[in-house]
Amino acid sequence: MSQVATPSPVVAMADRIRAGSQVSLARGLTLVESRAEAASELLAEIWKDSGQAHVVGITGPAGSGKSTLVTAMAREYVARGSRVAILAVDPSSAYSGGAILGDRIRMTEHAGNKDIFIRSMASRGATGGLSRAVLDGIVLLDAAGFDVVILETVGVGQAEVDVISVAHTVLVVSVPGLGDDIQAIKAGLIEIADIHVVNKADRPGADLTVKQLRESLRLAHGLAGKWDVPILKTTASDGDGVPELLDKTAEHRHWMTDNGAMRDVERRNAATRIRWAAETLIAATLRSGHREFDAAVDALIARTDEPRQAAARLLTAMAVDPTDINGKGQS
Amino acid sequence: MSQVATPSPVVAMADRIRAGSQVSLARGLTLVESRAEAASELLAEIWKDSGQAHVVGITGPAGSGKSTLVTAMAREYVARGSRVAILAVDPSSAYSGGAILGDRIRMTEHAGNKDIFIRSMASRGATGGLSRAVLDGIVLLDAAGFDVVILETVGVGQAEVDVISVAHTVLVVSVPGLGDDIQAIKAGLIEIADIHVVNKADRPGADLTVKQLRESLRLAHGLAGKWDVPILKTTASDGDGVPELLDKTAEHRHWMTDNGAMRDVERRNAATRIRWAAETLIAATLRSGHREFDAAVDALIARTDEPRQAAARLLTAMAVDPTDINGKGQS
Repeated sequence: MSQVATPSPVVAMADRIRAGSQVSLARGLTLVESRAEAASELLAEIWKDSGQAHVVGITGPAGSGKSTLVTAMAREYVARGSRVAILAVDPSSAYSGGAILGDRIRMTEHAGNKDIFIRSMASRGATGGLSRAVLDGIVLLDAAGFDVVILETVGVGQAEVDVISVAHTVLVVSVPGLGDDIQAIKAGLIEIADIHVVNKADRPGADLTVKQLRESLRLAHGLAGKWDVPILKTTASDGDGVPELLDKTAEHRHWMTDNGAMRDVERRNAATRIRWAAETLIAATLRSGHREFDAAVDALIARTDEPRQAAARLLTAMAVDPTDINGKGQS
Repeated sequence: MSQVATPSPVVAMADRIRAGSQVSLARGLTLVESRAEAASELLAEIWKDSGQAHVVGITGPAGSGKSTLVTAMAREYVARGSRVAILAVDPSSAYSGGAILGDRIRMTEHAGNKDIFIRSMASRGATGGLSRAVLDGIVLLDAAGFDVVILETVGVGQAEVDVISVAHTVLVVSVPGLGDDIQAIKAGLIEIADIHVVNKADRPGADLTVKQLRESLRLAHGLAGKWDVPILKTTASDGDGVPELLDKTAEHRHWMTDNGAMRDVERRNAATRIRWAAETLIAATLRSGHREFDAAVDALIARTDEPRQAAARLLTAMAVDPTDINGKGQS
């Protein structure tokens, strides 16, 4: 009875996240990373408060100065009165060490600043699991009132592309002087870029890198009605070009909104979220110990039923009540 | 109207597989590998005819002579009046080449023999996809009337362990003289073995390998009520020890049946199949172009709904009709 009067721990956590508690936000992200049942509850609770943040993805090869660029961007966003969250993701690592830890140390200049929140996520288990944790993490950061969520990946593989593709605006960072070919081309990142950034633009060869990128873009793009992918030069270490990058990023967001492309990204992300929620609900029913499921398994073994028919009947019989899945519905 | 009178291509294929057509069986396995919608239909059609075969898994490091052993076992099974299917699986490869092709060439001595069927499967995409194709493939081979299905893996990684664990009886093959440690221990295969086979037992060091295995088993096993994991010596190249291996394999099957352990394996496999069938059914509904799903996506974006609630309502509303999923149900 008292359960009705007292809000659940998850509801209380959602309230504190909405109120701006960074401690609760950090705990919520840990919950989301662990993929605990309560994470799905938290997400359901906080979903309606999300949908405002601009999600900016940044990827590019090691040594391109992504972390310094992210720091410089965050500083500029704050100077413009925005609140920024940074989610640094490393799909190739099971732990947040190395590069990401480096970022965080570098980022301590922002420690104690309420307008900046920094978090790293590494792969615990499957890459699919990480993508889900990232997508859910963005909802929490969004609902916590951050205007911009910067999603930074450490590597440049397919897993990174999968992770970054949930962003509204994708920045691909290149750097001059790492050989004749542009690293972004090698890594297959040309197609996912909304904005190309040639960082460390004070180095020799920056103009050549820009030229090579422009060549590649001429092959890949240039269609009418499409966003004209710009190439910007930055020197993140002294902030050169960063204001222009923020302007262009905002311009891309407006273009996305006007053009309907923003809605396409939102639709894709929402569709993914419904599928994941469905999988979670189904996994709660289709497991040993659940009476109807066990009966279906027996019927399969007895050959009085076949898998597809059994699955269909189970799904129909489920009449899923989402308030009923946190262990209570298991008879 | 004529559709009612004429059996569907899948039903006709199922009939031919049951009747013993190796050509249709091979086509069915290709269908199952492709994970086409029709594969789920074929499985539903043929499910009731399966459940008789003894599924024997064989794994072990490269160079342990697995292929020669499988050939020798198949020959002995046929000599005893059994029909044998061999499914050679390589999770590390996208194509069936190398070792598996070698097997098949070696196996040509059996070509034209109705009592032996040989097929290789390699990973096309995700490992999970391969496990599913293997599990479904076993159903087809079983329904085609093979008494024994030998599931042979090429490597010794986690993917191989996942694949082989669907077998009723798992043989782990070692070979003398590949260093002090037993390869099976290194590869973490000790725990999944129902029978250890020291192949190439005519080589020096065979007894030492047996001794080392026995030591490991003493640590890992020896509990009352458990199957006492035997260590058998074979020289597959001249057939030595192979009859004893078949006897022991049959003994394990009987022990599994008497003990209830066979039912546990069957339950686990049946549960996996229902989950997969459910995922297939749900994927058919939860995709863009489906009216209710698209409406749910819109509600999510508008923040009038949240993912878990949306998923629950969709699942409830689905009232899945499995005859309705082959593209026809998409309005």
